[in-house]
Amino acid sequence: MQLQHVDALVVSVGFDLPYLVGYHAMPLERLTALVITADRATLVVPRLEAPRVEHHPDVFDLVAWNETDDPVAITAALIGTAQRIAIGDQMWSRFLVEMLPRLAGRQFVRSVDVVGPLRIHKDAAEIAALAAAGAAADRVAAQLQRGEIPLAGRTEAQVSADISARLLSEGHDVVNFAIVAAGDNAASPHHHPGDRVIARGDIVLCDFGGTMDGYCSDITRCVHLGEAPADIARAWSDLRRAQEAGVMAGVVGASCESVDAAARAVLVEAGWGDYFIHRTGHGIGMEAHEEPYMVGGNALAIAAGHAFSVEPGIYVAGKWGMRLEDIVVATETGPRRMNTTPRELVVL
Amino acid sequence: MQLQHVDALVVSVGFDLPYLVGYHAMPLERLTALVITADRATLVVPRLEAPRVEHHPDVFDLVAWNETDDPVAITAALIGTAQRIAIGDQMWSRFLVEMLPRLAGRQFVRSVDVVGPLRIHKDAAEIAALAAAGAAADRVAAQLQRGEIPLAGRTEAQVSADISARLLSEGHDVVNFAIVAAGDNAASPHHHPGDRVIARGDIVLCDFGGTMDGYCSDITRCVHLGEAPADIARAWSDLRRAQEAGVMAGVVGASCESVDAAARAVLVEAGWGDYFIHRTGHGIGMEAHEEPYMVGGNALAIAAGHAFSVEPGIYVAGKWGMRLEDIVVATETGPRRMNTTPRELVVL
Repeated sequence: MQLQHVDALVVSVGFDLPYLVGYHAMPLERLTALVITADRATLVVPRLEAPRVEHHPDVFDLVAWNETDDPVAITAALIGTAQRIAIGDQMWSRFLVEMLPRLAGRQFVRSVDVVGPLRIHKDAAEIAALAAAGAAADRVAAQLQRGEIPLAGRTEAQVSADISARLLSEGHDVVNFAIVAAGDNAASPHHHPGDRVIARGDIVLCDFGGTMDGYCSDITRCVHLGEAPADIARAWSDLRRAQEAGVMAGVVGASCESVDAAARAVLVEAGWGDYFIHRTGHGIGMEAHEEPYMVGGNALAIAAGHAFSVEPGIYVAGKWGMRLEDIVVATETGPRRMNTTPRELVVL
Repeated sequence: MQLQHVDALVVSVGFDLPYLVGYHAMPLERLTALVITADRATLVVPRLEAPRVEHHPDVFDLVAWNETDDPVAITAALIGTAQRIAIGDQMWSRFLVEMLPRLAGRQFVRSVDVVGPLRIHKDAAEIAALAAAGAAADRVAAQLQRGEIPLAGRTEAQVSADISARLLSEGHDVVNFAIVAAGDNAASPHHHPGDRVIARGDIVLCDFGGTMDGYCSDITRCVHLGEAPADIARAWSDLRRAQEAGVMAGVVGASCESVDAAARAVLVEAGWGDYFIHRTGHGIGMEAHEEPYMVGGNALAIAAGHAFSVEPGIYVAGKWGMRLEDIVVATETGPRRMNTTPRELVVL
């Protein structure tokens, strides 16, 4: 806060709060807010949720508000005369809108300016947690590649539910997403698994992850039902080289955008530039997407302990799509992958 | 917007967006925003999510932004010179914080001021959806009361997972929550189901719900493993009368706070006033909690088509807790319950 000249930090729903004090705010209409100023840290919680809080009086005071109290007024009073206020990135805007008239003339910045530089550096325990989550996701990816997850004849939604169940049985506490996109649906990077019945001849893109002991996994593999046509096989070969180039570029001292550029250059050179329509990766930790982002324009230098995805894709609208993704942690001795599942386009 | 003198409405993550145009924003760091001004409605989406949108050009324009574009600048430009701006209640604050410097001198209000009065009135199709979701939750509650969901010897977390699976198999598309709280854990109204092994002699509070065809269920029932001690049996009798009084008070024209007062009066009179530590209920619809809230201070008059929970509880810290909840829809002919599961404290 001192480095950023921030006088008050207010975090709520999201991961800054649990990162700082170990408590998750419920994403509901009753405000939970941790307010940190120069001399005090106070957790404001709905009284009915106070029993959920493991209180550490040496770390923060606890203020439980009753149903007919005004938690926005309580929070604003704790902010006091702070001039420069960092607001939790994912706090519901309704609370900020209600605070604004009480905080006229103040300056607002994002909480990521304060908490981001702490969260972005993963220590040994955090890397171990990422590795364990990655290994659990790898076991499900291996089941996919071995043909143990039935595909042909089932809907995308059914396969998504199956993968979700396997993520849990391999040790995840929560499933964050399980994209299953077949054939031309795979050209929609964030496709919502639906009623499409998977058939022979389809490419099937599976991008899934969850949270295990507080840290996230995220992996993408594709399989092809039956021999892949030449254009798809060639595209996969290009994609694999692009992903490898992106991973290898993720060294300490390199810029985040250079990781994106390295993967993109391979696809552009192979003629797929217009079909790679998203950034190359995102940071990962307690949150599935967090800093640092591997995207053009992000000059941030990669440091040891940064964890991020490398996931180029090729999307041909109306025809097919593919993506290949591993999680990587930057170390002093080079990029260390959290996923070791083979990167072939497995034919089933 | 005209009634509220709102010049621009900006909605993102949450349920105002799907209510208005049928699209759910992904709760991620890439901004999705529907901007409505006097002459135009525009949906701003990340390019990689554009294929998810079912576009209705007669309803809204579509602007897909690329990874290196600035979606906040695009959104602010669409807001233009609007003076009074309604912001989506659940939009991530990071986007509002980034918009503020571009919108100096403007006035901000909550989107609920504009969209709330529309969403609060459920039409016949919405009531039918609430009834269907309620019936599905009832079927799981009946399984609980018949002893078909094993309790003794299992952890709260295991029972929560079991109830979740049953909600899905009874037709819900998503499970929103499945609180299972045994013994003194039931004194924490929003208890997170954990490792506590349920045992004979425990009261077990189960509060669960999900979303089915876009509308929510929410029900609470308690069972007692073995004959209930006299104090718990008496408390349940009081609680049941309080819940009945709250439901019966939910008539067209009555204030929301009178529903709270009716339930509370029964518990206060019975000596439980200090142990009923939350409001009596919340509205329900596409969202598990929405307007109207049955809470002291809310003078809003109930109208036909308002849907809300009536859920008084008694919480004795360190000993036990209990809650009884049904969803009710106000109609011209009186309160109509969406849940019909018997309201006894069933002994198993």
